[in-house]
Amino acid sequence: MIIQLESSITDEQRDALKAQVSALKYKTNDVKTQKGEYIIGIGKKQFDVRNIGHLPGIKDIHIVSDDFKLVSRKWKVNRTTIDLGDGVLIGNGHFAMMAGPCSIEGEENIQKTIDHLKANDVKIMRGGVYKPRSSPYSFRGMGIDGLKMWHEAAKAAGIKIVTEVMQVSQIAEMYDYVDIFQVGARNTQNFNLLDELGKVDKAVMIKRGISGTIDELLYSAEYVFSGGNENLLLCERGIRTYEKASRNTFDINAIPILKEKTHLPVIADPSHGIGIRDHVEPVALAATVAGADGVIFEIHDKPQEAFSDGQQTLDFEESARLINKMRALTEMSI
Amino acid sequence: MIIQLESSITDEQRDALKAQVSALKYKTNDVKTQKGEYIIGIGKKQFDVRNIGHLPGIKDIHIVSDDFKLVSRKWKVNRTTIDLGDGVLIGNGHFAMMAGPCSIEGEENIQKTIDHLKANDVKIMRGGVYKPRSSPYSFRGMGIDGLKMWHEAAKAAGIKIVTEVMQVSQIAEMYDYVDIFQVGARNTQNFNLLDELGKVDKAVMIKRGISGTIDELLYSAEYVFSGGNENLLLCERGIRTYEKASRNTFDINAIPILKEKTHLPVIADPSHGIGIRDHVEPVALAATVAGADGVIFEIHDKPQEAFSDGQQTLDFEESARLINKMRALTEMSI
Amino acid sequence: MIIQLESSITDEQRDALKAQVSALKYKTNDVKTQKGEYIIGIGKKQFDVRNIGHLPGIKDIHIVSDDFKLVSRKWKVNRTTIDLGDGVLIGNGHFAMMAGPCSIEGEENIQKTIDHLKANDVKIMRGGVYKPRSSPYSFRGMGIDGLKMWHEAAKAAGIKIVTEVMQVSQIAEMYDYVDIFQVGARNTQNFNLLDELGKVDKAVMIKRGISGTIDELLYSAEYVFSGGNENLLLCERGIRTYEKASRNTFDINAIPILKEKTHLPVIADPSHGIGIRDHVEPVALAATVAGADGVIFEIHDKPQEAFSDGQQTLDFEESARLINKMRALTEMSI
Amino acid sequence: MIIQLESSITDEQRDALKAQVSALKYKTNDVKTQKGEYIIGIGKKQFDVRNIGHLPGIKDIHIVSDDFKLVSRKWKVNRTTIDLGDGVLIGNGHFAMMAGPCSIEGEENIQKTIDHLKANDVKIMRGGVYKPRSSPYSFRGMGIDGLKMWHEAAKAAGIKIVTEVMQVSQIAEMYDYVDIFQVGARNTQNFNLLDELGKVDKAVMIKRGISGTIDELLYSAEYVFSGGNENLLLCERGIRTYEKASRNTFDINAIPILKEKTHLPVIADPSHGIGIRDHVEPVALAATVAGADGVIFEIHDKPQEAFSDGQQTLDFEESARLINKMRALTEMSI
Repeated sequence: MIIQLESSITDEQRDALKAQVSALKYKTNDVKTQKGEYIIGIGKKQFDVRNIGHLPGIKDIHIVSDDFKLVSRKWKVNRTTIDLGDGVLIGNGHFAMMAGPCSIEGEENIQKTIDHLKANDVKIMRGGVYKPRSSPYSFRGMGIDGLKMWHEAAKAAGIKIVTEVMQVSQIAEMYDYVDIFQVGARNTQNFNLLDELGKVDKAVMIKRGISGTIDELLYSAEYVFSGGNENLLLCERGIRTYEKASRNTFDINAIPILKEKTHLPVIADPSHGIGIRDHVEPVALAATVAGADGVIFEIHDKPQEAFSDGQQTLDFEESARLINKMRALTEMSI
Repeated sequence: MIIQLESSITDEQRDALKAQVSALKYKTNDVKTQKGEYIIGIGKKQFDVRNIGHLPGIKDIHIVSDDFKLVSRKWKVNRTTIDLGDGVLIGNGHFAMMAGPCSIEGEENIQKTIDHLKANDVKIMRGGVYKPRSSPYSFRGMGIDGLKMWHEAAKAAGIKIVTEVMQVSQIAEMYDYVDIFQVGARNTQNFNLLDELGKVDKAVMIKRGISGTIDELLYSAEYVFSGGNENLLLCERGIRTYEKASRNTFDINAIPILKEKTHLPVIADPSHGIGIRDHVEPVALAATVAGADGVIFEIHDKPQEAFSDGQQTLDFEESARLINKMRALTEMSI
Repeated sequence: MIIQLESSITDEQRDALKAQVSALKYKTNDVKTQKGEYIIGIGKKQFDVRNIGHLPGIKDIHIVSDDFKLVSRKWKVNRTTIDLGDGVLIGNGHFAMMAGPCSIEGEENIQKTIDHLKANDVKIMRGGVYKPRSSPYSFRGMGIDGLKMWHEAAKAAGIKIVTEVMQVSQIAEMYDYVDIFQVGARNTQNFNLLDELGKVDKAVMIKRGISGTIDELLYSAEYVFSGGNENLLLCERGIRTYEKASRNTFDINAIPILKEKTHLPVIADPSHGIGIRDHVEPVALAATVAGADGVIFEIHDKPQEAFSDGQQTLDFEESARLINKMRALTEMSI
Repeated sequence: MIIQLESSITDEQRDALKAQVSALKYKTNDVKTQKGEYIIGIGKKQFDVRNIGHLPGIKDIHIVSDDFKLVSRKWKVNRTTIDLGDGVLIGNGHFAMMAGPCSIEGEENIQKTIDHLKANDVKIMRGGVYKPRSSPYSFRGMGIDGLKMWHEAAKAAGIKIVTEVMQVSQIAEMYDYVDIFQVGARNTQNFNLLDELGKVDKAVMIKRGISGTIDELLYSAEYVFSGGNENLLLCERGIRTYEKASRNTFDINAIPILKEKTHLPVIADPSHGIGIRDHVEPVALAATVAGADGVIFEIHDKPQEAFSDGQQTLDFEESARLINKMRALTEMSI
């Protein structure tokens, strides 16, 4: 049960309300976000909401049968729009493209990528400065200095930044230089990280776990939302299966299923979803017509020279073609 | 290695050629199909094809490094077109829609479905008369009598029939009433069935195994082709994964990967691929833009009354809408 | 619902009973096996069994909530013993070892294997004469002639034969030479083959599908049992997962779960279950202590020269050691 | 390549050695653990180790072709023993049992569990004080206060503690009260956590990821080892598959494969591995005979009243029986 509170609610009213809910054997959780205040009631037996509905300070009450509550579309039918500022919107009809290298590599690569994005009217750049790597001996990214360099160039060009945060201690140092904090597929159930991102007033994009279920992704989003941050995006990036002809199995089904279950925007990552450069485009187009609110993909001016995973990276010509095709699909009315 | 033979080759020439290939430590397999004659050479060490290229009776020689040979696009770059007669073509630019009930149920349902297909200019009707069922106590389909009834109505309307054949003994009795023999997901590696379908001059559509790999699907097609039948289609219908939010995980990646690996047409089955009526459309559209040569989907005038699996079955209104959208996508040039 | 009939039941009594069950809106299925006669009632609403319990000709009535009925342990608590004759028993305390080559290769290999089995007091020999192969160009086994040769040697030595049957037409020709018909992992849901094996009075061992569920395996067994054949064994042989360090993932959980769900004997196949020669032994021992009724494994006097899959094949020394260890484990009382 | 250094090596010798290795185009990584000092050389081309082998300060040089190095058995054939003090050893012939509740619940439950362990001569107690939970509204454990209470009772009884650490900031506060830091299945690839645990001189047990590969588990261990901590255990706890008859699929294959690949002890968790109380025992026994160095399992004096997951929790009678059987198996010589 979600009880939306009036912004004018007094402390006494809130206490009285919580007491009443507790009396009905429901556990209460206080949630206060950038956009509103809620009490989440968790309990087993249904009761007549009229028992509390008359109390002052309540804006609305919603029965949500899912175990995730605030991210469910069962209480919030209107789709969420993420506003990154400067007119950059994601979701609820605003299709977002996010492109950039796997890893931020240096000034020259940053600038070339930004120029390409500008030329193609793409507003958000992706790139890693903290890289999760299976082996401790691999390059782990340029770190905060790389992020600062990137941010300077991106800001000058009016480009927004999405990049992965790997641990709690990085949040504060990254805060000023990031527009969307990305939670990677290996951290989808890093609950402490999610807790902390709930306290931040910046957009957060959570990738589905390497073999995470759709419901687990929604629960992870519930952590951030209930922690206080409504600015959330979800990202389908392929799941691990027995099939080895592709790096992962992009779960196209997840797009319409997520869109039915949640009001949050859903982004597709075809680069990791298939992991084969020549086939990133068809998967991106498929996700677009299946209802994704955006696509994030890897590009590089010289893919074969890119750090790690050049094999799923588009060059700028391929990128421009894909951007045009996605735009054509989102603009057609079928 | 695939050696394409001239139709004018003499027996002596063929014998001499095979002797020469055998002398190079290659095992030879004779293949004679509706469209041509081939010798497949299987061996380990590469040799100089000029050692045999000068022999009379040879049209062309292709080195194919894949373990599947005749279905590989490495020797046949041009895409295969399946011709069902009466101008009904599949593949190589001809997008095919196939729709109908899960099971053939009786005259009224058949006629209503045909009327719907005609009204929407769809040329191929699907439906099961032999139904593979997990439980021996379930309805197993109307059998050959149902097929004959269906065929009579379909023929009168100019509609082609695709339906599943489950065992060798059914091939002969079904032959006159079927346009495409479908091999179901539980029979993808029923090699005896595939062998026999190689001897038949009718189109065969092989569904990917329930957790079959893309390569296994291609090997299964190789059975039919090398048995003598080139009229082959492949069908992606979702794979079994840990995710339970959908019936199967439709492997959108398989569409571009198959299109790269083989010259055969690739059909998508979104009904089984996601198994949720409300989401069949986005998956069908996704497969369409990803490059599928056709889509097969379940429809029924009253889905909730359909035999088994009504939950993934579109009604006629949903079907008409989907058909129009797929048509719009295949006609746009992006 | 399973109604066990008295052997003395008259046709009139049977008809009256079925009429009564049908009147209660239950569909009836007649089952007559080597061991008894049953009526399987399939329906949704539970009813008071006293409504039929008084009718003559009934031995017992069992409510079985599972969708599989005759193979369920819910009606038959006593475990089934398979009797191959000559004192060779499997199940219900009789631990069975089955060993032999992947493929039957010829007289010499047969005799060496038999000598090894005799020396180690193993009563059942495995081996393939019809081999399911992914590629049509691979060796497909010695066929019926190989089986006859094998049978002659095995019979002389008092060794029983388990071998795969791939299609309906092979059953009759193989019948006289086989003690256990094996249904392979690619044919677990070849329902026509299962139907026909129900009509045969020979033991049948069904392997779990390549990614079959435990329930699907039980349903497949239900096909054979309800077709008339109670002499059934099930075989866990590993499932397909994302893990590539082993050929398959042997599902040790399946052993106790199957033993709880069914009264049929459960055999383990560690050779395919892990697919790595050095590790066949620990998996075999694990299955033994987990409650398997037997173990089937691949051996060869010269594993590296065996047809296909020598990499999971034990030599005779390794085989003898494994046999001794399994024997020690089954004989200890923990 | 692993270069083991003499403890007497001088800084000059170390610098000269690293310069020489770098000159051979190998990247060097300094590793200093509780037990020794190593230089890890990462490079592509093999070179003649005699080029460096003569340099002073080198104890031994090992070529390790795996991508994980220090945890590989290719350089350290002798198995690692973990010494928890007071004679509690794990690995290299010392079989360890670890039992306790899912979550630490309070004094009474702690004491009852300790009494049971003492009575059965089990030296290590498991239990969670920080619980990773899918839903933010679930109980997340008693935290540090619960750990302190537990530690007091355990210390008095001579029982060692294994418990999960979820984030970097918890390491310091937990340090004095923990004998083995457990890294949970959702944190197997939380590389920052692994980095920090490398700096700690306490044993660390890493659980395999929910759908982690065997190699990924070894890479994660490499993080901790190369960070400076050799006191490592690995834990197989079941993987996520399509099979829903069990909570996870316990990967019995992983036991012998891990034992071949690494010198570290391998622990089995049958409770999560199958997730069904009645079947925990057979899976535990299976893991024991397959070569596991220990078993960790959930017990509770009243399983049905345990926090979360009582369904996989043994009562004390079942626990005692299992302990005896495991002991019998480890003591028999087969």
